Amino acid sequence: MTITIHGATGSPFVRKVKVAFAEKSIPFEQESLIPFGVSDEYKKKSPLGKIPCLEDGDFTLPDSSCIIAYAERLQPNPPLYPSDAKGLGRALWYEEYADSKLTEVLTSFFFQRVIRKNFMQQEPDEEKLKEVAQNDLPPVLDYLEGELSDREYLVSGAFSVADLAVASPFVNYNHAGESVDASRWPALTAYLERIHSRPSYKACIEEEKAMFGGGGS
Amino acid sequence: MTITIHGATGSPFVRKVKVAFAEKSIPFEQESLIPFGVSDEYKKKSPLGKIPCLEDGDFTLPDSSCIIAYAERLQPNPPLYPSDAKGLGRALWYEEYADSKLTEVLTSFFFQRVIRKNFMQQEPDEEKLKEVAQNDLPPVLDYLEGELSDREYLVSGAFSVADLAVASPFVNYNHAGESVDASRWPALTAYLERIHSRPSYKACIEEEKAMFGGGGS
Repeated sequence: MTITIHGATGSPFVRKVKVAFAEKSIPFEQESLIPFGVSDEYKKKSPLGKIPCLEDGDFTLPDSSCIIAYAERLQPNPPLYPSDAKGLGRALWYEEYADSKLTEVLTSFFFQRVIRKNFMQQEPDEEKLKEVAQNDLPPVLDYLEGELSDREYLVSGAFSVADLAVASPFVNYNHAGESVDASRWPALTAYLERIHSRPSYKACIEEEKAMFGGGGS
Repeated sequence: MTITIHGATGSPFVRKVKVAFAEKSIPFEQESLIPFGVSDEYKKKSPLGKIPCLEDGDFTLPDSSCIIAYAERLQPNPPLYPSDAKGLGRALWYEEYADSKLTEVLTSFFFQRVIRKNFMQQEPDEEKLKEVAQNDLPPVLDYLEGELSDREYLVSGAFSVADLAVASPFVNYNHAGESVDASRWPALTAYLERIHSRPSYKACIEEEKAMFGGGGS
């Protein structure tokens, strides 16, 4: 039975799962699903109507964080979670931060310039984006810059779910024609280049570039 | 070094952590903290300014889900996470559902009738609560009733983080003078009585009753 991942290409949460599965060489099929006006049938699988949702025979599992934890048990190697208590705690925290505040700030550019423009035939609200760029973005990037400092990965010297999650919404930021200012956030810029050039991320970004036309560095 | 948990009594997320630590017999001290207008000093520990946040020497960890995962590594027994892949995935999903939609719906009663009334000197918006009770609450309780069916616990026949998380916001619902209609949701009602009468939950609810005066079944 092949695992199906329901979800839309371009979603930072669907991307997280696809990259995790690529890292672990777990085969899957993506079933395209836009998370607006989803069917009652889909809500039986994903009660909040959100994407992604995994389906494996009669087993269903919504939520990117849950799906990746499940994948870790299916295929423990390479591990995506640190084994020590503090490393695990911090990795899960960075994942939570990435999935909430970071994604909220970074995908506002993608929503205005890609989704609104191409899929809703509305002009992007550039005034709003200017406010986000001035007020909301710098503290978020400052936080990551400080946490990274001279580290190669966010936690415990190895690629983990923290890096997987933090790097994902930056792909949306790139699709929207933006990139992190390397002069102001040098450690973060170098880190994102490193994570996005992993084969797992690279393949996913290439596939998306064909769809959204943007950067995706 | 004693572990400190920063957070307000009455928060469903702080309660989750306190009950988890009680289940595992991990000693801790609670440092009372209301999550409004938090200091810059606290934001260094909890960048989103949210509660709870754990502090253990120079190690800090925000977010109830991250803290409980950390506690599981500190003290693996009794386990709060199922060991099989599917059980783990489902337990984490129920935790996610509890921490988002379920808490949003159930704590609206607590916010209006306890927080607004007692701490903000404002009348509760009973019209709004009537809408929540009619439109938002039934699908959420229906979902849990269906998932529970005749099961003692949500996942794998043992108490887990799923039960810990799902039972928590119902304490707030009880503090607001509400209780689940046993004639309409009998499995859920019996389940909540079971979980809330565990020594870990019972002690926490008793402590809170003294503060909020409400039920807490």
